[in-house]
Amino acid sequence: MSRETADLTGVTDKLPPEADEDLEDMALRDDYALAPEFVAMVVDAADRGDAERLRELLDALHPADVADLMGFLSADYREEVIAHLNPEHLAEILSELDTDIREEVLEHVPSDTLARALGEMESDDAADVVDDLEAEKRAQVLAAMPESERVAIETTLAYEDETAGRLMQREVVAAPQFWTVDQTLGHLRRESDELPELFFDVYVVDPAFRPVGAVAVSQLLRAAPDAPLAQIMEPVTEIPVTLDQEEVAYIFNKYHLISAPVVEPGGRLVGQITVDDIVGVIQEETEEDILALAGVSDAGRDAGVMGIVRSRLPWLLLNLCTGVVAVSVVGAFQDEIAKVVALAVLMPIVSSLGGNAATQALAVAVRALASRELNAANTGRVVVRELFVGILNGVSLALVMGFAVFAWYRDIRLAVTMGLAIVINLFVAAFAGVLAPIMLERLGRDPAVSSTVLVTFVTDFMGFLAFLGLASVILT
Amino acid sequence: MSRETADLTGVTDKLPPEADEDLEDMALRDDYALAPEFVAMVVDAADRGDAERLRELLDALHPADVADLMGFLSADYREEVIAHLNPEHLAEILSELDTDIREEVLEHVPSDTLARALGEMESDDAADVVDDLEAEKRAQVLAAMPESERVAIETTLAYEDETAGRLMQREVVAAPQFWTVDQTLGHLRRESDELPELFFDVYVVDPAFRPVGAVAVSQLLRAAPDAPLAQIMEPVTEIPVTLDQEEVAYIFNKYHLISAPVVEPGGRLVGQITVDDIVGVIQEETEEDILALAGVSDAGRDAGVMGIVRSRLPWLLLNLCTGVVAVSVVGAFQDEIAKVVALAVLMPIVSSLGGNAATQALAVAVRALASRELNAANTGRVVVRELFVGILNGVSLALVMGFAVFAWYRDIRLAVTMGLAIVINLFVAAFAGVLAPIMLERLGRDPAVSSTVLVTFVTDFMGFLAFLGLASVILT
Repeated sequence: MSRETADLTGVTDKLPPEADEDLEDMALRDDYALAPEFVAMVVDAADRGDAERLRELLDALHPADVADLMGFLSADYREEVIAHLNPEHLAEILSELDTDIREEVLEHVPSDTLARALGEMESDDAADVVDDLEAEKRAQVLAAMPESERVAIETTLAYEDETAGRLMQREVVAAPQFWTVDQTLGHLRRESDELPELFFDVYVVDPAFRPVGAVAVSQLLRAAPDAPLAQIMEPVTEIPVTLDQEEVAYIFNKYHLISAPVVEPGGRLVGQITVDDIVGVIQEETEEDILALAGVSDAGRDAGVMGIVRSRLPWLLLNLCTGVVAVSVVGAFQDEIAKVVALAVLMPIVSSLGGNAATQALAVAVRALASRELNAANTGRVVVRELFVGILNGVSLALVMGFAVFAWYRDIRLAVTMGLAIVINLFVAAFAGVLAPIMLERLGRDPAVSSTVLVTFVTDFMGFLAFLGLASVILT
Repeated sequence: MSRETADLTGVTDKLPPEADEDLEDMALRDDYALAPEFVAMVVDAADRGDAERLRELLDALHPADVADLMGFLSADYREEVIAHLNPEHLAEILSELDTDIREEVLEHVPSDTLARALGEMESDDAADVVDDLEAEKRAQVLAAMPESERVAIETTLAYEDETAGRLMQREVVAAPQFWTVDQTLGHLRRESDELPELFFDVYVVDPAFRPVGAVAVSQLLRAAPDAPLAQIMEPVTEIPVTLDQEEVAYIFNKYHLISAPVVEPGGRLVGQITVDDIVGVIQEETEEDILALAGVSDAGRDAGVMGIVRSRLPWLLLNLCTGVVAVSVVGAFQDEIAKVVALAVLMPIVSSLGGNAATQALAVAVRALASRELNAANTGRVVVRELFVGILNGVSLALVMGFAVFAWYRDIRLAVTMGLAIVINLFVAAFAGVLAPIMLERLGRDPAVSSTVLVTFVTDFMGFLAFLGLASVILT
């Protein structure tokens, strides 16, 4: 492998055409991520201004891998790559790019090239790209597109972001109930050019174009030719066009859907969502949860240092404020600490254990809420269970730490203080950890956002208060 | 709605058959989760021993919703529900159930009923269920199955858990390159009974049964009847049978695959993976990351209090150990604290800010690693960027907190100590937060597991050391 790399980098133009195959092999590592050596080869070709070599390298990549490559390059190199992209592939690559990189890339693509590329895309992908354009360029690009394509994009953009309407493609295959299998197959063959490139279901519609069922393409292939669609169709799960994408993903996941019809309020079929769009949504939504729980706003993959600081500093400042309030409890017990300095040594353990236990309960509750495993039917049971867990964990940790404190300081009262404070704080942690996300959800907020800050504030505050408060009573 | 509920609960047997429709409407809330009222109706029917009513309620549910229902019921009610399940639906419901609930449910299903139900499932789902059976029952059930089905299940179980081999279904549709579209369609129609219920691609294979391409079913429908498959097929991404399911999900997501052929080491086609299996994997894998970052092992949805304690207490004990080590630093500075008690008040702020900043960097790095956005090609750049972010956030927080400390204690040296300690700890936090997951990944470990414990230990330890160490130099 390394020998081939050396060969190719040096003497490209002497290589036979079969070398393409080798480039494809070299592009990806065993884990299907882009190989760093390949990225280096692209950078090298760009540095040398070797256009032919650059095109050869890019041609060896799947559009998704070109998009990946863009993420590993700096802005200058990206511009270079875009300029050498095979024009037919631009459309595919644009829909693969991360939003922040795409915005930058779009600035360098001429309006008419872009208009042509958009015509190659499905309406949902095209709308996403247009949405990223600045107002002026957007107007130019739309003006350069055929009427029907422009209307399709404008209609899609009229739906709110992150709803079924934005996720769906308007291209669907529909047939009336009374058509036979044979009639439907004949229609599909004749209208081939008008159909979406890939589809999995034929939606069966009533005269008002409301879906009443669906026939999977693989079923259509083997059904009796004279069977009417109404006879072989399966029930469908309709997706309202205004439904939030998280709900759409939940439905797809729950019912293992491959595609689903999207309907207007009147029930009219206006588009379809396919599962490959959903895979991205699920990834996006769980990623949002991970970041929200860690107290980070999404800065985007390509954010610079200042962008990242902006996505994190507000959360840290909030943490600073709650931290100041929490330690004000410590300030109130300064006299006790001055007398027994061991209190200062031990108190971080109480608050830290509480914070950890609360984070555990919180993460479990946030996931259970997201997957609807936790809802009104079992909230009471789940909360009670968490409280028992809190007490049991608290008692276990209290015993361990109580003995440790006694062994360390030979002070039974200090050990008892420690143990009791841990039990109290672990109970509070369980309570706060499970209730904070439930309350946030009831209030119509995202249960992952800000619950960590809230909950660690509670466990810090209670940790200090329980430990130092008990100490002031038990030790004096 | 509430009126209907009341009606139905009271006078079931007087209702006309159309009431079924109403039951279906009542079963789900607007967000497509099971309605608590419906769960209550099931419990009520079970309590009254009203078998007819119970069956009626269950018939109104999609198998996925019956599985959901099981999650909301206690073990006794679950047994009752299973006994009244429409036998044809048992197979579908079994593959929807969570593992822990399924294990319990399977104990109550007779071996021969189970053998029949398994025959209805795709090989991957059937293998999953068999995997959950106890040794004795497993032998009984397998013995009651036809030879071919038993072999399929045993072959699937021979692959390691969480690999492509376990995820794939053995049922595939394959055709030789030289077949025409018409020949293929004819074959599909004749062999209808042998084919998987749903399929999206026909894999084109060479004489050694190695996939050389694929034709989407929707393409097959509209291609010229006399075109040979070799002419219209598209390249395929082969999945090695031993590939980890996380890698499989990455490939599906990256290339927007609907299905992919799974091959043995020699390249022979042995099965296929479809995207609906992948949706579950993606959810599972990101969920694992969330729980791992929060320091929780997965206890399963239906775990009891002791099960949950077992999944969390080990992590808390580990946190206790690292906490004791971290506060030993505080112990070493007891004399300073006794002199200036404000140190005890302020030190938790330094460690807590560090912990938060590290958690932010950590969560971002873990997600970037999982989506391959962070790899050898840009590790250096990402780490340097994080360090700059750490310094900038540190300086900002140090200024805010430095002024606050000065305003509070009127002690410029204390304020400077605080500010410097914050800058140092935020730098260390950035360093630890981004490097811990990278290092764990390089060592072949899961970057999400145990990195939080590691990183908060570092920031606690350094927070105390930097603050109290500087204090001992600056203040005395």
